[in-house]
Amino acid sequence: MSGNKTYTLVRCRFIVDSENIVENLNVIIQGNVIKSIGHEIEGDEIDCSNYVVIPGLINAHTHSGMMIFRGYYDDSELADWLSRIWDEERKMTQKVMNIGSEISVIEMLSKGTTGFVDMYFNPEGVKEIAEKYGIRVEAGYTFLDSMMEPHEVDSRQRKLSRTNYFKPIVNVHSIYSTSVDTLKLAKQLAEETETRIHIHVAETRNEIFQSKKKYGKFPVEFLHELNIVEISQLVHLGWVANWELEYVEMATHCPTSNMKLATAGFFPFIDMIEKGKNVTIGTDGPSTNNSLDMFREMKNTVLLQRHSYWDTRIKALHALKSATEEGYKLMGIKGGKIKEGYMADLVLLDSDQLYPLKKDRIVSNIVYNAVGENVSKVIIDGKIAYERGKFSARKKELLSLIDNILI
Amino acid sequence: MSGNKTYTLVRCRFIVDSENIVENLNVIIQGNVIKSIGHEIEGDEIDCSNYVVIPGLINAHTHSGMMIFRGYYDDSELADWLSRIWDEERKMTQKVMNIGSEISVIEMLSKGTTGFVDMYFNPEGVKEIAEKYGIRVEAGYTFLDSMMEPHEVDSRQRKLSRTNYFKPIVNVHSIYSTSVDTLKLAKQLAEETETRIHIHVAETRNEIFQSKKKYGKFPVEFLHELNIVEISQLVHLGWVANWELEYVEMATHCPTSNMKLATAGFFPFIDMIEKGKNVTIGTDGPSTNNSLDMFREMKNTVLLQRHSYWDTRIKALHALKSATEEGYKLMGIKGGKIKEGYMADLVLLDSDQLYPLKKDRIVSNIVYNAVGENVSKVIIDGKIAYERGKFSARKKELLSLIDNILI
Repeated sequence: MSGNKTYTLVRCRFIVDSENIVENLNVIIQGNVIKSIGHEIEGDEIDCSNYVVIPGLINAHTHSGMMIFRGYYDDSELADWLSRIWDEERKMTQKVMNIGSEISVIEMLSKGTTGFVDMYFNPEGVKEIAEKYGIRVEAGYTFLDSMMEPHEVDSRQRKLSRTNYFKPIVNVHSIYSTSVDTLKLAKQLAEETETRIHIHVAETRNEIFQSKKKYGKFPVEFLHELNIVEISQLVHLGWVANWELEYVEMATHCPTSNMKLATAGFFPFIDMIEKGKNVTIGTDGPSTNNSLDMFREMKNTVLLQRHSYWDTRIKALHALKSATEEGYKLMGIKGGKIKEGYMADLVLLDSDQLYPLKKDRIVSNIVYNAVGENVSKVIIDGKIAYERGKFSARKKELLSLIDNILI
Repeated sequence: MSGNKTYTLVRCRFIVDSENIVENLNVIIQGNVIKSIGHEIEGDEIDCSNYVVIPGLINAHTHSGMMIFRGYYDDSELADWLSRIWDEERKMTQKVMNIGSEISVIEMLSKGTTGFVDMYFNPEGVKEIAEKYGIRVEAGYTFLDSMMEPHEVDSRQRKLSRTNYFKPIVNVHSIYSTSVDTLKLAKQLAEETETRIHIHVAETRNEIFQSKKKYGKFPVEFLHELNIVEISQLVHLGWVANWELEYVEMATHCPTSNMKLATAGFFPFIDMIEKGKNVTIGTDGPSTNNSLDMFREMKNTVLLQRHSYWDTRIKALHALKSATEEGYKLMGIKGGKIKEGYMADLVLLDSDQLYPLKKDRIVSNIVYNAVGENVSKVIIDGKIAYERGKFSARKKELLSLIDNILI
């Protein structure tokens, strides 16, 4: 299927997005957008009577190049793990990062992820991979003072250009790993290149303590006084004070990684959505989660919220909305809904894995039971980017390459 | 492969249990036991160079017959959900429960579960299903005063006999849904039929409150004074007091279900294993979890423990041990380890889903990344009980049957 053709997903068992659930209808795709949902058929036909169609999933925070660290020293606590990993990262070549990113992209694609936000040190490589696989990516070099000189990050970042699938963003590791000057430089860079900052914030109790000690302020408060919060996607936000939330515009929850690293946080999901803010979900990197499966992440989002708040206010539908509609909003793309005029970024799930198949249960069964392995086909920008089993030869090749470089 | 034959799993990529990890060795299976692990080959050969072999997983707590409720009214809190479900359950026929149990068994088997402990109202049906599929089950009628007259439960339970795959146990729903007389009857029944009691205990804060109000005691304390704790497998245990733990012998953690129902509990995993107690893991029923995947449950066990205790003391290996070795210990079967003389209950995982493949990462990658869908073959009692795709016709048939009975 070429991006210029018109074709039809015929008799989709269910079509589910954060607004609607319909049964046994057709989706006509024209070029890279959804032309209509109804009974008409145009162009080639794909029988979807055994598929449930949902919008593509956006993994709003990961570190794709870290695939080579999956399972490495990963039963430790965050500070301990970070110092180990940073030692190893200083020795890493671009080639190794790119191999990691390519494996991650194949894995994410196969599990229904149609776009991701990447924080690492190989955005040029990630850009090439994005074009090759036709998956949407936002990435950039990362400000992290111990790893790379800030002006070097700034200068490299300015050479990154936008393409159909790739958009540069300004990555800042955290306030505890960068100086005030670096943060100001990052802000200026983001403004001049008309993008946002993507930063880990308020992940641990220790971060709050250190921030208060060093700056006399809480992390979000500190970033607010630098006028950074308003243009930032704040990742983790497990230890944010309620009064800080008024400054926050975009926040990303990574429940699995935070639980695994015992950061014991409390992401204010319900408070954020009640204020109409942009809330997204990320798997975090393959070395902390260790899965890159957004289905599992949607479920864990609900689980951790309910456990934290002792109530069931966060429902399956909230997680689905954050992983689809809100993810596309974050990336500034008209997608994440299955609606006329929206990007044709769609995931086709095997319906027989979602039983019992009933309209009032289908969202539950997608969020609480499905896994990435139930994905049969993935459509991005109107093109079929993935069908089950695709890229398995390339994956084997990449795996044998990393076998020789693993620590 | 018949149970009487001798055959060999040749060149297993990894053989992993809670005690050892070895690479590229063979497992000889003779009849229903493991004869040896080494370089020898006997009988037919199964090439396992692309598989990682682990012991079978025991799902220590589920309600298999509740498959028809998966996704039904499941974004509510426990008390609310229970009253809805109980209304529906009163109308359920044995046939409907059996269809649910058979779908659950096929699903669990396909995800590497080799045995499960079932609490529901159709143990005769479950027994037949266990024999048909060759999966290990413990089940019994359930004492639940509003659902069935206690002496009726007692009399039906005494007619249940043991087979190779099936063992009767005494199910008691909870202390809040049974009278003291019922509890005493259950205790007598368990003693006379030489089995244990399987009971939901200390699941919610409200249960503690009601128990204190009604009996002046905490739930475990109350069961201890009835001399019931010592012979009981206590499920959930999210609100147990530390001093009550000395009475507890066997406990089962269902992290996903407890998080999903917002019970906000704190299962004392580390305290229990430090006391040398039997700690197992369960998915709970398909209507609360909603997945029956023990891989996901192992991961969620670690996640919730770390989140609760703010530390990383519970590791991947603890979860693996609880799901295998401790599960078999609970069921009184010499299994759960890949060792000479142990039951040949084994799960073969696709190794290319567990990358990077390294000895010091393999347990992490199994517990934190694998899902049931990565299971290729399941061996129970020396026989190949499942190979990918098996029973799919029967599953389709059962799904179409339940389609007509769903509420």
